[in-house]
Amino acid sequence: MKTKIDLDELFYPKSVAIIGASNTLGKVGNAIMHSMTLRFKGKIYPVNVKETEVMGLKAYKSIKEIPDEVDVAVIAVPAKFVPDVIDECGEKGVKGVVVISAGFKEAGRADLEEELVKRARKWGIRVVGPNCLGVTNLENGFDCNFNPPERQARPKFGPIAFMSQSGAFGAAILDWAARHEVGMSKFISLGNMADLDESDFMLYLKDDPKTKVITAYIEGVKDGRKFFNAAKETTKVKPVIILKAGRTEAGAKAAASHTGSLAGSYKIYQAAFEQTGVLAAKSMRQLFNYAKALAMQSPAKGDRVAIVTNGGGAGVMMSDGLLEAGLKLAEFTEETKEKFRKAIEEGLLPEHMSYKNPVDVIGDAPSSRYETAIRYVLEDPNVDIVVVIALFQSPALDERIVEVMERVKEYGKPIVFVAPGGEYPERMARKIEQKGIPVFETVEDGVDAVYALIKYGRHIYGF
Amino acid sequence: MKTKIDLDELFYPKSVAIIGASNTLGKVGNAIMHSMTLRFKGKIYPVNVKETEVMGLKAYKSIKEIPDEVDVAVIAVPAKFVPDVIDECGEKGVKGVVVISAGFKEAGRADLEEELVKRARKWGIRVVGPNCLGVTNLENGFDCNFNPPERQARPKFGPIAFMSQSGAFGAAILDWAARHEVGMSKFISLGNMADLDESDFMLYLKDDPKTKVITAYIEGVKDGRKFFNAAKETTKVKPVIILKAGRTEAGAKAAASHTGSLAGSYKIYQAAFEQTGVLAAKSMRQLFNYAKALAMQSPAKGDRVAIVTNGGGAGVMMSDGLLEAGLKLAEFTEETKEKFRKAIEEGLLPEHMSYKNPVDVIGDAPSSRYETAIRYVLEDPNVDIVVVIALFQSPALDERIVEVMERVKEYGKPIVFVAPGGEYPERMARKIEQKGIPVFETVEDGVDAVYALIKYGRHIYGF
Repeated sequence: MKTKIDLDELFYPKSVAIIGASNTLGKVGNAIMHSMTLRFKGKIYPVNVKETEVMGLKAYKSIKEIPDEVDVAVIAVPAKFVPDVIDECGEKGVKGVVVISAGFKEAGRADLEEELVKRARKWGIRVVGPNCLGVTNLENGFDCNFNPPERQARPKFGPIAFMSQSGAFGAAILDWAARHEVGMSKFISLGNMADLDESDFMLYLKDDPKTKVITAYIEGVKDGRKFFNAAKETTKVKPVIILKAGRTEAGAKAAASHTGSLAGSYKIYQAAFEQTGVLAAKSMRQLFNYAKALAMQSPAKGDRVAIVTNGGGAGVMMSDGLLEAGLKLAEFTEETKEKFRKAIEEGLLPEHMSYKNPVDVIGDAPSSRYETAIRYVLEDPNVDIVVVIALFQSPALDERIVEVMERVKEYGKPIVFVAPGGEYPERMARKIEQKGIPVFETVEDGVDAVYALIKYGRHIYGF
Repeated sequence: MKTKIDLDELFYPKSVAIIGASNTLGKVGNAIMHSMTLRFKGKIYPVNVKETEVMGLKAYKSIKEIPDEVDVAVIAVPAKFVPDVIDECGEKGVKGVVVISAGFKEAGRADLEEELVKRARKWGIRVVGPNCLGVTNLENGFDCNFNPPERQARPKFGPIAFMSQSGAFGAAILDWAARHEVGMSKFISLGNMADLDESDFMLYLKDDPKTKVITAYIEGVKDGRKFFNAAKETTKVKPVIILKAGRTEAGAKAAASHTGSLAGSYKIYQAAFEQTGVLAAKSMRQLFNYAKALAMQSPAKGDRVAIVTNGGGAGVMMSDGLLEAGLKLAEFTEETKEKFRKAIEEGLLPEHMSYKNPVDVIGDAPSSRYETAIRYVLEDPNVDIVVVIALFQSPALDERIVEVMERVKEYGKPIVFVAPGGEYPERMARKIEQKGIPVFETVEDGVDAVYALIKYGRHIYGF
């Protein structure tokens, strides 16, 4: 079964009408104009019944007056006018609308929402929202989000797509991703999902060449069967990571009064995630640890983890973290142990180092010693994935570790790098990430990364 | 029972001898001189058999030649010379030595370590280490740590003390704390604990007026009974938070080859921590979330948590997080609900807000609306602790939230603030923290904070 949903026009429109565009600061229609005009190079047509010009652009009283084709309309007018606006969009030949306006189902007006959908269906228009921040395409700057950039930064363009049933939390995630230099492809604020829902977007993102990993915050899926099928199909192509909220009784109650989601038993979700190969994250940080690892590395082809560290304590913590996450450490082959023994004898490696797993290259290790140890464990057929821990606080560890990490990619096994500390490790992290190896700030983040690469690897390769 | 251990001379010496001080870059004795001369205002006497001057200071061939009293000697000479150096320190009347040198028990030379202790005992000298980074007093700049500041920043002075059985990990923690603006009082790299161990330092820090929270990374305690008694006594006075590594089989094995700790069953540690009131952290971030909360807020006098948020999704996640941590949400009294109802009727609060717990003041909430809601829940006798979540991405939320947070401290109940996102929330976080309210970056960090305040509160108040 292959399901294709082409929503390219929603993310790559050549022309957009902003209905409810405004010159008045503080109005949503003004904020959207600001966001849209920041980077988007397509044609932007403000629509406002009273204004003749909005932010220097000629304004139209109705979308129908625009003397050009309009691919997408972003609607930010009071809820009661939205159904009629949809009709006008239909007459104009618009293919997709993003309804930012609130005041529908979430405000007790399910009737208005049904009317909205009815009109859209009549014209064959697909709808995002209502009651949302719309979509943001980080690639071309198509951005319906009304939060101003000084409050909510936009992340750089990158391989992670994010969908959110909570607009406010979605905004926080974008801001967070920008701050932590996490690159995103597309952001979708799902809103009430009157028409397009998380499954539709998942299937669209499955075939989106700019998205390598799909992530989502959801409180409840709209249609269980549809979600199950969409997820099953999508995880064959790329990883799907979901932060499902409303897992506990108190959370489910809160979700019911937030999105009206019948959160359902989390056990059912867990089973569905497990069967479809969706990775379930329990926190924002975990979601992005999983996503970053899978965006930058291939999934593991087995579950045997090797650790190389210049700090014994960090090795102990990593061992604990991996085992507590249900993972296991590799047992090195006799050949590998022999290589280590020989290198120690020859003075290539230091006498007091440990070459059990974790391999402890000791605090005075330069990058060359790391390279030797990393190569030995990557060459070991009993090792499927390697975690390198570097405590850069030791001045012995030189910057050539960056090139070492690039070189050891040749073995084709996934590698996760952990560099705890402050500014210096952060600078080194960015350099190592430029070589394609993901770097994490803490041991526990590194555990998440390894977990994701093994868990998704198991789904794909079935070990 | 009251146990006092006065180690003030180790942290506040008037004069220090650096034995093994050197002009040669890359040598430990050179690096220590750099660290010590950075901020420490006491007298510094370099000792070196060959040099006449080290870093511009007159050098002495032996500590005995120093024409002044010496409170503390920092020793960084090859292991085999250490016992004799200890004797010289004894003759000089030194009260405490910090042995940085490695090459003792951890290198198979238990005999040399026993000799070291024997000599020290003879003179009544207390010993830190050997095989460690020594002690760092962030208050007066007394700093034996040989990692250079450009690799390992020193945190600002503050209320959290940290002890570490792993020097390298301890260094990473200091660097991390500096980067995250976590203030520290004293850092102790425990090393082999030939003499002074984690229990001795815990008891010293118990009476240290500059330390509000004691934290530690340990793989195994040196003397179980001693630790149990010290912990029991200390947690009556201030919180103790321990990250115990070697919790799993793989971790315990790694610990055995790292510090030689017989990590023992983690169940035994868990029971001891539970009985003595020690908070057990499982990760670096959790350790500092616990510590920051307890350093800035009083422990809770009950376990009923209220949430006030401007984002429904974050409220759902916080509810999940709290319940998954074994905590519970408060049930508001009828009076509180009535207050909310009335305020909504009067237009003081918005119609569609939820005033069940979590209280959702909605995305367009200004700080004044937060103040109303926070006051209502703090006034509720069913509420023991409040989490305020602010998604600053909404431009409606104004900066007067800082003063709001200062004002609501008047109720005397602990408050935790969560502000997810990027640069703007980070700036606001620092401002709110200046008012004494701890701010956390993610919902999960906030959960840790609430957990610590309730868990330690339960230990102290017995609810």
